[in-house]
Amino acid sequence: MDNWREFGTDELTPPLRAALGVFARHGYHGASIRTIAEAAGLSVPGLYHHYRSKQAILAALVDAAMAEMLTHTAAAAEDAGDSPATRFANIVECLARFHMARRDHAFVASTEMRSMDPDVRAHHISQRDAQQTMIEDAIRAGVDAGDFTCRHPEDAARAIASLCVSIASWYRPGGPLTADDVVARHLGYARAMVGATEA
Amino acid sequence: MDNWREFGTDELTPPLRAALGVFARHGYHGASIRTIAEAAGLSVPGLYHHYRSKQAILAALVDAAMAEMLTHTAAAAEDAGDSPATRFANIVECLARFHMARRDHAFVASTEMRSMDPDVRAHHISQRDAQQTMIEDAIRAGVDAGDFTCRHPEDAARAIASLCVSIASWYRPGGPLTADDVVARHLGYARAMVGATEA
Repeated sequence: MDNWREFGTDELTPPLRAALGVFARHGYHGASIRTIAEAAGLSVPGLYHHYRSKQAILAALVDAAMAEMLTHTAAAAEDAGDSPATRFANIVECLARFHMARRDHAFVASTEMRSMDPDVRAHHISQRDAQQTMIEDAIRAGVDAGDFTCRHPEDAARAIASLCVSIASWYRPGGPLTADDVVARHLGYARAMVGATEA
Repeated sequence: MDNWREFGTDELTPPLRAALGVFARHGYHGASIRTIAEAAGLSVPGLYHHYRSKQAILAALVDAAMAEMLTHTAAAAEDAGDSPATRFANIVECLARFHMARRDHAFVASTEMRSMDPDVRAHHISQRDAQQTMIEDAIRAGVDAGDFTCRHPEDAARAIASLCVSIASWYRPGGPLTADDVVARHLGYARAMVGATEA
């Protein structure tokens, strides 16, 4: 990865990108295979050639989005070197930037947990937990290094992840806050939430 | 209101409560009037006797949930007397408790913004903004009183509201954290986010 801060065009296949738009507008249960095929410029059999079911489309879509997030987050963590406080900041920044760049992906992944078959949901939760564990590990390392005072790292990691996820629900490019503003403010909130000792 | 901390049975009519369950499971677009009527123990014409459309059901449901939240929040603010820091804490606690007691309501209200007709959505946003304005006013009063150091009260109010909303997505009664644990931790996060000076 050249730059973990940059999220260009996503890596979804064209049918998955079409499905993303349909799921975001109508919800999984309100989306028909025909509507997805039309949005993708495919016949229904053509779409089934790529994906065996609507559930397989949801699974591939959410997996691709989560994998992109995890790849960027791992690069952000790596880029921090040995400093837990910098690692924490980079991960939070990465999560905030992902949720500004991938609003529909984040919305569908979080709201359609209910629509996932058990194995798909379990895989999704494992990816989400991997993300939160990276935050939690950075918090614990920061506490050990004396950078943070946080009594519940696991809970704080979930809260910080939730806060970053929520950015997708209100942020709009060209709105009153730039992406850098959003990052700066959320870094401030996240550092306060873990009791960062240097301000 | 006897106690703003208590959320007993919600005040939804039986058809609205049935619709809530169907919307939460299948999404608005995936929910048929027939399914809602069956869940409510009504015929389809019987359901239409109460509500003229699926959109009217969504509107009434979300309005009732938001009105309950606002009534409790106003009582929580009132209960704080003249202290901005207590007012802030009461409002945050109220919002956290609402989102533990009304998980489906919160989920449907936030995820089905996309499904609301423009006038329904505008009303919903006005209720949500009223909630956030109560938080923002308490933050500004706390800054004026020297209790908080917060440079962006409007943004902080949105972030704190988002954090409380997200509780609905993971909290379960009987889970590892009690409702009081969740309240205590989120009060800690919220106070840190506004730079509360006394710890």
